[in-house]
Amino acid sequence: MNRKWWGWGDPDRLDPVEGHAELFEFLKRQLVLPEGSSYPRVDESQVRLPEGRLSAELLAELGRLCSPQAVKTDSLTRLTHSAGMGYKDLLWIRRGSLRDYVDAVVFPGSEREVLDVVRLCDRSMVEVIPYGGGSSVVGSFEVIRKQGQGVISMDMGGMHRLVALDPASLTATFEAGVSGPELESQLAARGMTLGHFPQSFEYSTLGGWIATRSAGSSSNIYGKIEDMVLSMKVATPHGMLEMVTVPKSAAGPDLRQLFIGSEGILGVITQATVAVHRSPPVRRFSSFLFKSFDEGLACVRELVQGGLRNTTLRLSDSNETNSFFHSRGKAVALSSRMKEAVGLWLVSRRGLSFEKGSLLIAISEGDAQNVENDLSRLRATCRAHHGFSLGSSPAQAWLESRFEQPYLRDSLLDHGIMVDTLETATVWSKVVQLHDAVAVAITTELEKRGKSALVMCHISHTYNTGSSLYFTFMAAQEPGRELEQWEAVKEAASWAIVTNGGTISHHHGVGLEHSKWMVREDGEQGVAALQALKAYLDPRGIMNPGKLLPTGEVGTA
Amino acid sequence: MNRKWWGWGDPDRLDPVEGHAELFEFLKRQLVLPEGSSYPRVDESQVRLPEGRLSAELLAELGRLCSPQAVKTDSLTRLTHSAGMGYKDLLWIRRGSLRDYVDAVVFPGSEREVLDVVRLCDRSMVEVIPYGGGSSVVGSFEVIRKQGQGVISMDMGGMHRLVALDPASLTATFEAGVSGPELESQLAARGMTLGHFPQSFEYSTLGGWIATRSAGSSSNIYGKIEDMVLSMKVATPHGMLEMVTVPKSAAGPDLRQLFIGSEGILGVITQATVAVHRSPPVRRFSSFLFKSFDEGLACVRELVQGGLRNTTLRLSDSNETNSFFHSRGKAVALSSRMKEAVGLWLVSRRGLSFEKGSLLIAISEGDAQNVENDLSRLRATCRAHHGFSLGSSPAQAWLESRFEQPYLRDSLLDHGIMVDTLETATVWSKVVQLHDAVAVAITTELEKRGKSALVMCHISHTYNTGSSLYFTFMAAQEPGRELEQWEAVKEAASWAIVTNGGTISHHHGVGLEHSKWMVREDGEQGVAALQALKAYLDPRGIMNPGKLLPTGEVGTA
Repeated sequence: MNRKWWGWGDPDRLDPVEGHAELFEFLKRQLVLPEGSSYPRVDESQVRLPEGRLSAELLAELGRLCSPQAVKTDSLTRLTHSAGMGYKDLLWIRRGSLRDYVDAVVFPGSEREVLDVVRLCDRSMVEVIPYGGGSSVVGSFEVIRKQGQGVISMDMGGMHRLVALDPASLTATFEAGVSGPELESQLAARGMTLGHFPQSFEYSTLGGWIATRSAGSSSNIYGKIEDMVLSMKVATPHGMLEMVTVPKSAAGPDLRQLFIGSEGILGVITQATVAVHRSPPVRRFSSFLFKSFDEGLACVRELVQGGLRNTTLRLSDSNETNSFFHSRGKAVALSSRMKEAVGLWLVSRRGLSFEKGSLLIAISEGDAQNVENDLSRLRATCRAHHGFSLGSSPAQAWLESRFEQPYLRDSLLDHGIMVDTLETATVWSKVVQLHDAVAVAITTELEKRGKSALVMCHISHTYNTGSSLYFTFMAAQEPGRELEQWEAVKEAASWAIVTNGGTISHHHGVGLEHSKWMVREDGEQGVAALQALKAYLDPRGIMNPGKLLPTGEVGTA
Repeated sequence: MNRKWWGWGDPDRLDPVEGHAELFEFLKRQLVLPEGSSYPRVDESQVRLPEGRLSAELLAELGRLCSPQAVKTDSLTRLTHSAGMGYKDLLWIRRGSLRDYVDAVVFPGSEREVLDVVRLCDRSMVEVIPYGGGSSVVGSFEVIRKQGQGVISMDMGGMHRLVALDPASLTATFEAGVSGPELESQLAARGMTLGHFPQSFEYSTLGGWIATRSAGSSSNIYGKIEDMVLSMKVATPHGMLEMVTVPKSAAGPDLRQLFIGSEGILGVITQATVAVHRSPPVRRFSSFLFKSFDEGLACVRELVQGGLRNTTLRLSDSNETNSFFHSRGKAVALSSRMKEAVGLWLVSRRGLSFEKGSLLIAISEGDAQNVENDLSRLRATCRAHHGFSLGSSPAQAWLESRFEQPYLRDSLLDHGIMVDTLETATVWSKVVQLHDAVAVAITTELEKRGKSALVMCHISHTYNTGSSLYFTFMAAQEPGRELEQWEAVKEAASWAIVTNGGTISHHHGVGLEHSKWMVREDGEQGVAALQALKAYLDPRGIMNPGKLLPTGEVGTA
C-alpha cells in the first residue's frame, strides 16, 4: 500500500479544509481558532532514526527465514511501523520522531514464515508487534521495550491470497494480511461481499479487523467482524493454533472469541475463514430529520427491536447534524439546495431545524423483497416519530464520502485543530445518559483548559439491546502542550464512559490507550484469567507487550 | 422440581409406547425386536448407596455456610445428582447403582453461599459438580474422583429469582438456577419471552443452558444461548468474576464466550443478563413435504441464506419423516386423515411419498408484518423446490408434543430398545456427506453386532453458513452387553463426525463423553490454552474434574 508517512492514506489524495469554506468558517467560529494556527510537519529528509538494536546475525537469520528483501531497516519504514493513526501518533510522527522505534520490519510471505519468525523471536527474546494496515487509533503499534529488548514489526501485507471459497456455504478463507479493497475485489469477482466497511477500510486488513474486533458501517446487516469468523489460524510462540470450521458448536468455550480481539498479544493471526454474502442486488437510500436526538433514538430503537435487518442506520446528534449540513462537497451541494427549497418551511411548520435536529441516514440493501420490507417499516416508523424525509441525497452523499474523513483530519491538524474520535456502546436505557456524560466531560475539560469545544456524536451500530456511540471532538490546540491537552480530554471521556455503563471500546480496541480500563470491563478476575492465558501461549512475553492488558499484577487472590 | 428418579421428568406423566400402536409395530418390525424384550428397573426401596466420604465437620461447615436443610445426604438425592439423562445414565440408574456417587448435595440460596461453598471446597480439596436441571446427556454429572477426594453436587435450583428487568433495552437478569418454565412465566407476566426452548426446557436451567451452549428449537429466530448473554457472574475458586453489561464490545477477547460452554470446570455461573423479546403477537404454522432430504436441504439453505429470520425450520430426513407419520397421538391422527385424503394422489402425481420424502416444519412468529414477509418467502421458495404443502397440522402437532419425546424414550427402554440421540453441525457443503457418514457408521456398527438399526435425522438449527444435524438411533438392546453396544455405536458415530467436517457437538456439550474429541475441535494448542486457563482459575482442580477437557497433558511444546 502506498501511504503517506505523516498522516492518512494516499499521498496524492489530499482534502484541504480550505476547500470546505462553509465548514472551515463554522469551525473557526465554534472553536474560536486563533488566526494563523498551525501544527506543521517536518520534511521527509529530516527523518533520521537511531540505529536499530538487532544484531547483524539476527537480521541475517530473519532474512534466511523469509527473504533478505523481506527485512527492512530504513528510517521511514521503521518510523511508519512504530505509530498508528491516533491523534497522539500524528502529533509525534509529524515531527519525525517518536518515543521509540521498532528495530526492523519483517514482511513474511507465508504461515510457515510467520511461525518461524515468531519462534526465532521467542528464542531470541525479541518483541513482535503484528501490523496489518497500520490504522490503529489506540496506540497498538507503540514500542514498549522491556529491558532494552529488540523489537520487530511484522507487516502482514504480503499475505493477501484468497485461499478457498465455498459458494454453497458462503464462506471464504483468506490470508490475514489481505486489505479491505483486495478482499472485496476478490469477492466481487465472484459476485460476493464480506460486507465489512470500517472507516479504515482502504488501509486496514482482515487480520487487523479480527485482532481488534472491528465494526464496519454495515454492521447492522452483516454483523461485526466477530460475528463473521468461522475459524482462524494463529501463530503463537507455543506453536500454530487452529480450530474446526463450523457455523456453531457446543464443544466447550468458544476459542475463536478468545483470539478475536487479542490484538497481537497471544500470537499472529495468519488466516481466517469468514462468512460472506452474495452481492446485494438492490440498494436504497433514505434520510430523515428528527426534531431531536432523543426522538431519533426512540425511532431507531423501535426499528431495530422491530426487526429491521437489512438496513444500515446512522443517527447523528444535533451537533453532528449541524456540522453535516455545514460541510461542503457533494453531500452539501445537495443539502444546500434542499435547505433553500424546504428549510424555512420545515422550521416554521414542523418545529424542525438543521441546527437542533437529528439526521438519520438509512441504507437498505439485499434482495428486492427484503429491501422493500425494510423500507416500508422504515417509512412508517419514522413517520410515527415525526421524522421528515430528506430523500436519498444525504445518505448517498454520506456513503460516497465515508472514507474521506481521515484526509480532512490531516488538514485540520495542519491548521492547529485537535480532532479525534472515541467510541463506546451501552444498553438502550443508558444511551442518553452516556451520550450526555461524555459530551459534558469533554467540553468541561477543554473549557477548563481555556478552549471552546465541538463535540459531535452518532450511533451507527445498533442491537436489540443497545447501541454504539461514536464521538468526534475538536478544539484549538494548546501550542506546546498538545499532548497534555489530548490526554486530559481522553482521561475525562474514558472516565465518563466507564462510570455511565459504557464499554471502553465498541470497535477501536484497547491497545495502549485503553488498557488501564480493562479491569472495569472484565473485572480483576477476568483480566487475571487473560493474563494467565497469555502467560501460557507467550511465556516470554514477546507478543506486542504492554498492549490490551494492564501492566502489573491484577487479581491475585 | 418433582422428578422421576429413574428417568425423565414428571413421575405422573408417563407415555407408554403401547399407546402408540402403529409406531410400536413399526419399530418392532424395523428393529427385529425379540418378543418380550425388556430392560427393567429396580424398586426405589432397593436403592442403597455406600456412605458418603465427607467428614461430619465438613458437612456441618457446609450447613453453616448455607443452612442445615440445604445439605442433603440421603441415597435418592445423591443417586439422582450423580447421573444425567444420557442413555448410559439411564442404563445405570435403573439398576439403582452407578459407578460412583456424590457424597452430598448442597442447595445454595445466594451468590454469597455459592462462593463460600466453592472456597470451602477449594480449601478442603472437595470436588464440586454444578447441577442445574440434571438433563445432561453427555456424562456431565458422572463422579470422577481424583485420589479419593470428597465430591459434592451443587444444585442451583434454589436460585431462581428475576433480579432485574430493563424493558427499554430488552434485557433481563436472572439467577442461574431458574428453570425454563420459571423463567418464561416470569417473563410472560411482563409480556416478554427469552425464546429459548430446548427439548429439556421443563427440566433445565438458565445456568445449565449457558454452561453447555444450549440451543432451543426457535434458535433460528432468537439465537443459541451464547447469542443471548450480555454478561454473567461466575463463582470461581479464585473469586467472583463479573463483566460489564453491554451489547457489544471491542475491549479485548470476549470473556463471556470463555465461560459460556465451560460446563462447570472454571466455576459456577450464579447469574446472567440475557436479551429478551416481546412475546410474539402472531404465530403461523406451515408444513411441506419434499421429494427427498436433498431437495429439502436445498430449499432450507435458500430460505436461510435469503434472509428468513422469523421462522423455526425443522427438516427431517426420510427415515424420520417415515417415523413421524407412523407416530400416534395428535400429530398422527391429523396426518392419518391427510394421508387418506391426499396420499395416493400425491404418490402418483408428484412422485412424493411419506416413506421416502422429507418433511419440513415451519413456525413463523413475531409481528404481523415480519411473519407475513417470512410466509410469502417460505411459500414461494418451497414451491420452487417442488415442496407440497401439508398445511399447519404437522407443525402444530410437532410443537405440542415437542417435550414428550424423553417420556417415550423411557418406555422404549422398558421394552429393551436402545434409543439415544447425538448431534453435530457443519457447513452447508458438507451436510449431506456428514449425514450419510454418520448414518452409515451407526448402522454398520449395529449390524456388525447383529442388530438392525433405525437411524433418523433432522436439521433444526440453521445458519447462513451451515446447519446442525440431529440424529436419533434405535436398536434392540444386546442383553448383558447394553453398555458395550452403546459405546461402540457412540465411538463409530463420533469418528464419522470428526472426520467429515462436523463439530463433536452443536448443543449437547462435551461432558465426559466428548472430551477425548476436543483436540479435534480446538487443536492441541487450543486445548492446552484452555487447560492453562483452568489451572489459573481452579488451581487445585476441584471444579467438575474430568469433564470437557481431555485428561493428561496436551500440546506442551
